[in-house]
Amino acid sequence: MKAGGRETRAAWWADGAIEYLDQRELPARLVTGRAATVEDAALAIERMAVRGAPLIGVVAGYALALAAAHREPLGPAYERLARTRPTAINLWRGLDRVRAAEPEAAAMLAAARAFDDAEVAAAEAIGEHGLALLGPGARVLTHCNAGWLAVQDWGTALAPVYRAQRSGLKPFVFVSETRPRLQGARLTAWELREEGVAHALIADGAAAHLIQRGEVDLVITGADRIAANGDAANKIGTYGRALAARAHGVPFWVAAPLSTFDRATASGAGIPIEERTPDEVLSVEGVDDEGRVRRVRIAPEGTAARNPAFDVTPHGLISGFVTEAGLVPATSEGVAEAFRRARDR
Amino acid sequence: MKAGGRETRAAWWADGAIEYLDQRELPARLVTGRAATVEDAALAIERMAVRGAPLIGVVAGYALALAAAHREPLGPAYERLARTRPTAINLWRGLDRVRAAEPEAAAMLAAARAFDDAEVAAAEAIGEHGLALLGPGARVLTHCNAGWLAVQDWGTALAPVYRAQRSGLKPFVFVSETRPRLQGARLTAWELREEGVAHALIADGAAAHLIQRGEVDLVITGADRIAANGDAANKIGTYGRALAARAHGVPFWVAAPLSTFDRATASGAGIPIEERTPDEVLSVEGVDDEGRVRRVRIAPEGTAARNPAFDVTPHGLISGFVTEAGLVPATSEGVAEAFRRARDR
Repeated sequence: MKAGGRETRAAWWADGAIEYLDQRELPARLVTGRAATVEDAALAIERMAVRGAPLIGVVAGYALALAAAHREPLGPAYERLARTRPTAINLWRGLDRVRAAEPEAAAMLAAARAFDDAEVAAAEAIGEHGLALLGPGARVLTHCNAGWLAVQDWGTALAPVYRAQRSGLKPFVFVSETRPRLQGARLTAWELREEGVAHALIADGAAAHLIQRGEVDLVITGADRIAANGDAANKIGTYGRALAARAHGVPFWVAAPLSTFDRATASGAGIPIEERTPDEVLSVEGVDDEGRVRRVRIAPEGTAARNPAFDVTPHGLISGFVTEAGLVPATSEGVAEAFRRARDR
Repeated sequence: MKAGGRETRAAWWADGAIEYLDQRELPARLVTGRAATVEDAALAIERMAVRGAPLIGVVAGYALALAAAHREPLGPAYERLARTRPTAINLWRGLDRVRAAEPEAAAMLAAARAFDDAEVAAAEAIGEHGLALLGPGARVLTHCNAGWLAVQDWGTALAPVYRAQRSGLKPFVFVSETRPRLQGARLTAWELREEGVAHALIADGAAAHLIQRGEVDLVITGADRIAANGDAANKIGTYGRALAARAHGVPFWVAAPLSTFDRATASGAGIPIEERTPDEVLSVEGVDDEGRVRRVRIAPEGTAARNPAFDVTPHGLISGFVTEAGLVPATSEGVAEAFRRARDR
C-alpha cells in the first residue's frame, strides 16, 4: 500500500537481511530498519519496530531463514524468536512453516517467501470477502492497527475498508487511539490518510458512546490469536468495544487470516496475555512544537501501572470472522468450516 | 485533603477573589491561580483550571458573588458563567443558590460560602455512606477524577476510598488514565499518592479486561448530571465501564451529591454532551526528561478527531447512587427518596 506516495510493504528480504519500516518512528518519520541477525530480528519484534500478528509471523519466518543462511544452530534461533512475544500465534506459524524446510538454507528462505506471499494473498482475499459487510458510506469503528502495516499489505480489519474505498463506496473510519502505544493514532490514522480514506481519531473511552449514539454501523478489528471455539485475543480495549456493539445491536466482526487461528487452544482462557512494561502506560511519545519526537511522563513520579497488552473477546460477542476462506460464524463449527474450505481449494 | 503534605481545598475565597489549585498544572506543579473577575473565573472553568462537577458549582457561586461585590450587572455575569460548560448541572446549582440572595453582595457571598460548605459536608457524608460498599482490601476501579480536587474536599467516588483508607481497610484503586485530558493519570493518581492509598494506573482500554479477569470488586465513578430516571452523565468512557461491570456481575456505583441530580431532565437523552476541541485528542501533555511540561502531537498532522467529553450510563446499569442522604437505587423512586430524606433531615 502507499507510504509517502509510493507502494511499499511493511517488511522485505533484502541482500541477506530483513528490512522493515520501523513502526516506532511513524508517523513522524519513514525510517527503514535492518535486521541482519536473529537477535536483531528478535529485538525488532520485542520492541515493536515490527508488529501486528501476521507481520510478526512473516518476519519471524525470514529470521529463521537468516539463521540458516548464517549456518547458525536452528534450535536456539527458533527458541529466541519464539519467546519474543507470547500472544500472537502467527509467530509460531511463520517459524514452523520455515523450519519444515530444514536444513537447506535456500529452501528455508523460499518457505519464508512463500509464507509471506500467502499472508499477502490472504489479506487481499479478506478485503474481497469483507467488502460485503460495508454499504455505501459505511461508518466503521476499528481499534489498534490492523492495516497493511500489521500484515505486509492490505491489512486485516482495514482490508475491506481499502477495498471499499477503491470501489467508490466512501467508507468512514472511527480510529480509536489505542493506548498505551497509540497504534490507532500513529499508524491507522497515517495509513488511512495515505490512502485517502475519511476518518476521525477518538479517545478509547469514546467508542461505547459513539456506538450508543448510533454513529457506528459496524466494528471490525483484527486478532492476535483465535481459539478453537472462536474466542479472540486482540489488542487491549477490543473486548470493551465488543460489549458496546452487542448492547446496541451493532455487528462486531473480526478479520484475520487462518494463520491467526489456534485450533490447539480450546478457548480464550488458554491464550497467554502479554503484560508489557508499566512505562508504556506512564508515558506517551509524540512530536513537540519544534518537530522533535519526545516521550513525556503523564503521571506522578513513582506511580505504579498495569499493562496487559491484549484482551479476549468471547466468541458469543463476535458476529463472525472475515478470513481468506470467506465469512464464517464465530463458533467451533465456523472455524472448522474455514479450514475445510481452505483445504478444499 | 493533603497536597504537598498540608491540608488544602481545591478553591477558596481570598481577599475579594477566588483562588484555586490550577489543575492543569498537576501533578508537575502545585500552582495557585487567582480569579479576580467574573471573566477570570469563567475562563478558569472553561479551560479546566478548575473542574469536577461539584467544584464547578462552588466556583461559579463565588464568581457570581464576585460580580455583586464589584457592583456588576448580575444578569450578564450569570449568563457568562452559565455558558462555560454545558453538562454539569452543579454549575447552575451554585449560580442559582447565590442569585437567590440578590441583591446584597455580603448576603450573596455568604450564600456562596454556605453552598461551598454544604458540598464539603455532602462529600464527607458520601464517604461515610459509601464505606459500606468496601470490604477489607477492596479492589475499586474508578474513572476520571472524582476525588477532592473535583469537590473541594473528600471527593465523590473517592470519598469512600479515603474513608476506608483511614479506617485501616487498605483499599486498592485501579485508576483509568481517562483520555483525552488524563484526569486519572494526572489528578487521581496524585491524590491517591498524597493520601497513601495503593493504586495502579491503567490504560482506558484495560478496564473491561481487568473486570473480566475478576480483578475488580466494584466500580465507583462520579457524575456530572443525573436525570430524574437515574441515567447518569459522566466523563467519556464511563459507559463502557458500566457495560463491562454488568457483563461480569461487578457492582457499578455512582457517587454524587444531590446538587448533581437534575430532576427537571427526564432521562439521559435530555442531558447536553459537551464536545471539546479535537486538539485534546490529537495531543498529550506531560513532563519530558528534563522536567519541562510539554505538549506532544500523537497523530499525523491534519488528522481529524471527535471529542465528546461525557457519556450517559443508563440507570439500568447502575447498582445505585451514593449520596449525602445515603445509598439509593438508580431509579426515579430512588432519586425521589434521596431528596425526601434530605428534606426531612
